[in-house]
Amino acid sequence: MGARAIEWLDGRLRILDQSRLPREQIFADLDNYHDVNLAIKEMKVRGAPAIGVAAAYGIALGASGIKTTNKDEFLAQLNQVMQVFAASRPTAVNLFQAIDRMKKAARGDGVTEIKNSLVNEAKRIHQEEVTATRQLSQLGAELIKDGFTLLTHCNAGPLATAGYGTALGVIKAAKEQGKKVSVFATETRPLLQGARLTTWELRQEGIPVTLITDSMAGHFMQQKKIDCVIVGADRIAANGDVANKIGTYTLAVLAKESKIPFYVAAPTSTIDLSLSSGDEISIEERSPDEVTHIQGVLIAPEGIDVANPAFDVTPHSYITAIITEKGIIREPYTEGLKEIGSRFS
Amino acid sequence: MGARAIEWLDGRLRILDQSRLPREQIFADLDNYHDVNLAIKEMKVRGAPAIGVAAAYGIALGASGIKTTNKDEFLAQLNQVMQVFAASRPTAVNLFQAIDRMKKAARGDGVTEIKNSLVNEAKRIHQEEVTATRQLSQLGAELIKDGFTLLTHCNAGPLATAGYGTALGVIKAAKEQGKKVSVFATETRPLLQGARLTTWELRQEGIPVTLITDSMAGHFMQQKKIDCVIVGADRIAANGDVANKIGTYTLAVLAKESKIPFYVAAPTSTIDLSLSSGDEISIEERSPDEVTHIQGVLIAPEGIDVANPAFDVTPHSYITAIITEKGIIREPYTEGLKEIGSRFS
Repeated sequence: MGARAIEWLDGRLRILDQSRLPREQIFADLDNYHDVNLAIKEMKVRGAPAIGVAAAYGIALGASGIKTTNKDEFLAQLNQVMQVFAASRPTAVNLFQAIDRMKKAARGDGVTEIKNSLVNEAKRIHQEEVTATRQLSQLGAELIKDGFTLLTHCNAGPLATAGYGTALGVIKAAKEQGKKVSVFATETRPLLQGARLTTWELRQEGIPVTLITDSMAGHFMQQKKIDCVIVGADRIAANGDVANKIGTYTLAVLAKESKIPFYVAAPTSTIDLSLSSGDEISIEERSPDEVTHIQGVLIAPEGIDVANPAFDVTPHSYITAIITEKGIIREPYTEGLKEIGSRFS
Repeated sequence: MGARAIEWLDGRLRILDQSRLPREQIFADLDNYHDVNLAIKEMKVRGAPAIGVAAAYGIALGASGIKTTNKDEFLAQLNQVMQVFAASRPTAVNLFQAIDRMKKAARGDGVTEIKNSLVNEAKRIHQEEVTATRQLSQLGAELIKDGFTLLTHCNAGPLATAGYGTALGVIKAAKEQGKKVSVFATETRPLLQGARLTTWELRQEGIPVTLITDSMAGHFMQQKKIDCVIVGADRIAANGDVANKIGTYTLAVLAKESKIPFYVAAPTSTIDLSLSSGDEISIEERSPDEVTHIQGVLIAPEGIDVANPAFDVTPHSYITAIITEKGIIREPYTEGLKEIGSRFS
């Protein structure tokens, strides 16, 4: 991959603004936590693993901006920084796992030591995601047969993970293993991550990709053009229920109807064993403007009522396997997920 | 309803340009068949019944533009006009039924008489669709219970039918019966007929409507927010398989999964008993630009591969009932459809 979604440049966080891809490749150097928080809220950085990594660096930046040398005062202010990130986006658990990790890393004799420790922990979280996404991709690629056409939703590539990718990582790794693969990418309304990002990343990898609207996925499964569905995840409950981009549940139902496998690829940082089922996952409701406007153009009557849940929950019974860096988990998920646990907890 | 989708103004066809709604309400007066044909191809007039009506008037206009007074020459040229319309859009059978009707109406002692006969037949086809859509709406409304929230896809209202509406007609009639109803409207990518037209029509009717992206329909069914799905149709095969706007099959699968009724509302002009199943229905593939551009704005990398089937086929086994002006048909569809037949054949 050419462009890196997230890069730490010794005191600044360089992000590739994903909201403007593929039309413009604009990098922003963020030197304070407010800007990092805004980048997460506005989805300039997006994808569960990438959000976690960005928040970790954001907390490190927030810490470095705190003026006091009094440790208690410092920790109190640091806590406020963490609260800001905790309120940025509710669904991806990687964010909260990263905040917890940073909280635990806020140790040391003095403020300077803690600041250094936080930077190092953020780098570690980042590196772990790079390693984990590469590992899970290698493992998952074993499920992909030569000649497969895969359907994916939203974007779960390097941009989303600050690493190798999850769903797209598996596809890339299958290609690296010498398998011929091709992809149908759903555009993923409202924010079009599939149309804008997945097509862009796959083309860079030389993997054939066909863009379709979300409404076409069922038709192509019915026509037997799709061998399996593979998606990422924003949060995986203890029973294997998966929160992911709105539309994922629909694809899982369609895959079941067409009797094709439905795979979820995610690093263990996406697992949340504290929730017994997907019913407990908080689903973010985003601005109506994302539905009524597409890239600034109004597409509906002014002031119309809109619903805009950013995620849905796919019950574990629809999921053929969950691909993690610690292994491929299948039913019964409760046992399998408990065994591997979350890397972060 | 205020604006009429199609109006015959003694020698001109006035259409409301549906491609520009709801931002602009622009009427176009078409005085030759080329413009009518273009309006159909470019979906300024759309919806299976409305296409049939527009084509009938277009053929009448084409006939009136033929200069010769030699009857054989006239009929030969008229045949060419009909060929043009037959090539405009392949899926909606109403178009072909209307052409057949016009062909049979091309009778009379002289050219002038035939021209008059064609205008009268077009008016008759139009009036029949108005009557049929009102009747089927009354019948279908019996299926809608007080307090229902219905989900509909694409646009099957007055605009689509040059009449009372089919799916939206049923909803309107339920409201007229004093039932409290509300609607979730899918935006219906690529051309956004749900976002642009269905919301606009329902708001005019005072029926509460919530706009969602196509990818959200499954989530709201899963959340038990939807009591039934109701859609129109572009062609119904003899066994009850239904071609309708791309994404309809997906909604039918989701409705089955959520155990809620899935209704199709269509006048009998949409029935094609010549096809034994939906496999034989020709599915229109439209321009990739409709997927890669939204209202002129590029949303994907330049030159990306795209699939753009405009319709899909929902097998009859997913359909709870087909609502026509001659009655509500249920399994076994082959018997029921054969009994009522196509009004046009």
